[in-house]
Amino acid sequence: MKAIVFENLEKGFCFREDVKRQSARPDEIEVQVSSAALNKRDDFVIKGLYPGLVEKVIMGSDASGIWKGRAVLINPGINWGDSQEVQSRDYQILGMPSHGTFAEWVKVPQQNVYPAPDHLDKHEAAALPLAGLTAYRALFSRGKLQSGQKVLISGGGGGVAMTCIQMALAVGAEVYATTGSLEKQEKLIDLGVKSAVDYGKEDWDKTLQKSFGNFDLVIDSAGGDGLKKLIGLVKPAGNLVLYGGTKGKSDGISPQIIFWRQLNIMGTSMGSDRDFREMLELVTKHKIRPVIDSVFPLDDFQSALDRLRSPHHFGKVVLQVAE
Amino acid sequence: MKAIVFENLEKGFCFREDVKRQSARPDEIEVQVSSAALNKRDDFVIKGLYPGLVEKVIMGSDASGIWKGRAVLINPGINWGDSQEVQSRDYQILGMPSHGTFAEWVKVPQQNVYPAPDHLDKHEAAALPLAGLTAYRALFSRGKLQSGQKVLISGGGGGVAMTCIQMALAVGAEVYATTGSLEKQEKLIDLGVKSAVDYGKEDWDKTLQKSFGNFDLVIDSAGGDGLKKLIGLVKPAGNLVLYGGTKGKSDGISPQIIFWRQLNIMGTSMGSDRDFREMLELVTKHKIRPVIDSVFPLDDFQSALDRLRSPHHFGKVVLQVAE
Repeated sequence: MKAIVFENLEKGFCFREDVKRQSARPDEIEVQVSSAALNKRDDFVIKGLYPGLVEKVIMGSDASGIWKGRAVLINPGINWGDSQEVQSRDYQILGMPSHGTFAEWVKVPQQNVYPAPDHLDKHEAAALPLAGLTAYRALFSRGKLQSGQKVLISGGGGGVAMTCIQMALAVGAEVYATTGSLEKQEKLIDLGVKSAVDYGKEDWDKTLQKSFGNFDLVIDSAGGDGLKKLIGLVKPAGNLVLYGGTKGKSDGISPQIIFWRQLNIMGTSMGSDRDFREMLELVTKHKIRPVIDSVFPLDDFQSALDRLRSPHHFGKVVLQVAE
Repeated sequence: MKAIVFENLEKGFCFREDVKRQSARPDEIEVQVSSAALNKRDDFVIKGLYPGLVEKVIMGSDASGIWKGRAVLINPGINWGDSQEVQSRDYQILGMPSHGTFAEWVKVPQQNVYPAPDHLDKHEAAALPLAGLTAYRALFSRGKLQSGQKVLISGGGGGVAMTCIQMALAVGAEVYATTGSLEKQEKLIDLGVKSAVDYGKEDWDKTLQKSFGNFDLVIDSAGGDGLKKLIGLVKPAGNLVLYGGTKGKSDGISPQIIFWRQLNIMGTSMGSDRDFREMLELVTKHKIRPVIDSVFPLDDFQSALDRLRSPHHFGKVVLQVAE
């Protein structure tokens, strides 16, 4: 079958047409992939920034597909375990170290396969799982977002951030975003965001605070130098949820702000099986449709990757696998 | 009456014998102070490190005393408000900006006065309120400490840290501490701590981790460079509670550790009226007695302050006010 394979750190990835279909274990099923979606994680794998890399593994965490004639999507989190608080030691994400979704067929535990919500087409269904799961857990299981609260999402334009924005709007929150370009600011406003600020501008945090005050919940995936500013934007007793750290370590964190305002700074990554089911319920109830930036054929993975890496992408980059 | 008065930033504090007793409002009562205890807060006031300083204010947050012939102690947190999550905007701590406990008489809202637990003498009762309240909220209301969990307390030797250690031991936790001297290490072991490490040694965190693994709960009041090490010592889904920041801002904080381990980093300061009541219940049930480092007469406040500032103090520094 056709697949995108992570060869090794030197060669990077490779499009191959001769990859053998894996034999499924008794508890696994094989799904025929319709569409797959890229995540930053895929780029981290190629760049060697992901821990525990294994050579010759089919890449990709997100997919929609067909199983027994029915449209399905896949929860990419394998073996989360029984705790709602944290993943088990056996936890894996599809696409590294186990074979992933950038292929014509993918084998997964049967419990990870769910009927695709009816209102989504195959590209949208492929774009949902990882971003939807991460966003749902960040906003609700961890951030305890409630209707009417003010929430600030950093990095509006990325897949998880966009899904956060859509979900927060759906439950009646007042949503604000930071983003890197004027073009994206306008698109975010169209989506329903009350205000979107350019995080490249000096004192963007003070500007935002002056106009809109502080926030009940802040969601961030960057860390780095921005984190101290984001902490300063949280209301007393408010929450800041971190689901990534693309800008690396954070300096200048003030203990005084954290303790005097009784803040909660929480980490989150992916989500439990329950988070996934609740996410699907929310998406179905509110007919949330992931924003698709662009669709590429599987054999043009390089272009899809270039688009993911471009600061201009807005929403999810998708691979069409089946016609 | 006699009192220690914060004059202003230039002059610092002054022992005076001619201070007028304040007239109490209808909702206030006047307590005759038996003993008072020092806190780092008092030193911050003198050094100008406390926000909102007011001149000519009687210092001090902690006291035991006599009211209507009965031994009482005082909750130094005024107007916490109705939320358990965070103090109201009207919240004040006795001793700045309102007149405090380093005096023969102190007026406080009647609801802030509680019968002193029978097993405490007047010095111990004076040593309890601020440290007990802060420790209780950090460990239980915020940190959700449970019997059998492993907890690490930084800065063992300080008033709040010592109370944290005593309370955590009382509920059946396995308690570890960091401290600055060999002498204190030995005293902490005597108190029941399983291991106490010297935070001045390089890689103290790795040494601790190698022998004892990671912790369900870490309590810190320093921030600064140690915070990133303490974060690295928290178990997956564990809690780190910050109640101070004596070493200032923290650098090198890794978002990856926070999000992948699904950590909770929480700020706490003082506590609600409910926290205070629950703290008194815990202290009474387990007959916890605050560790007293030393007792000085009120007019020798300078010596008490010197002792508070000394790295050798172990437990609370107390002022005897009445004979």
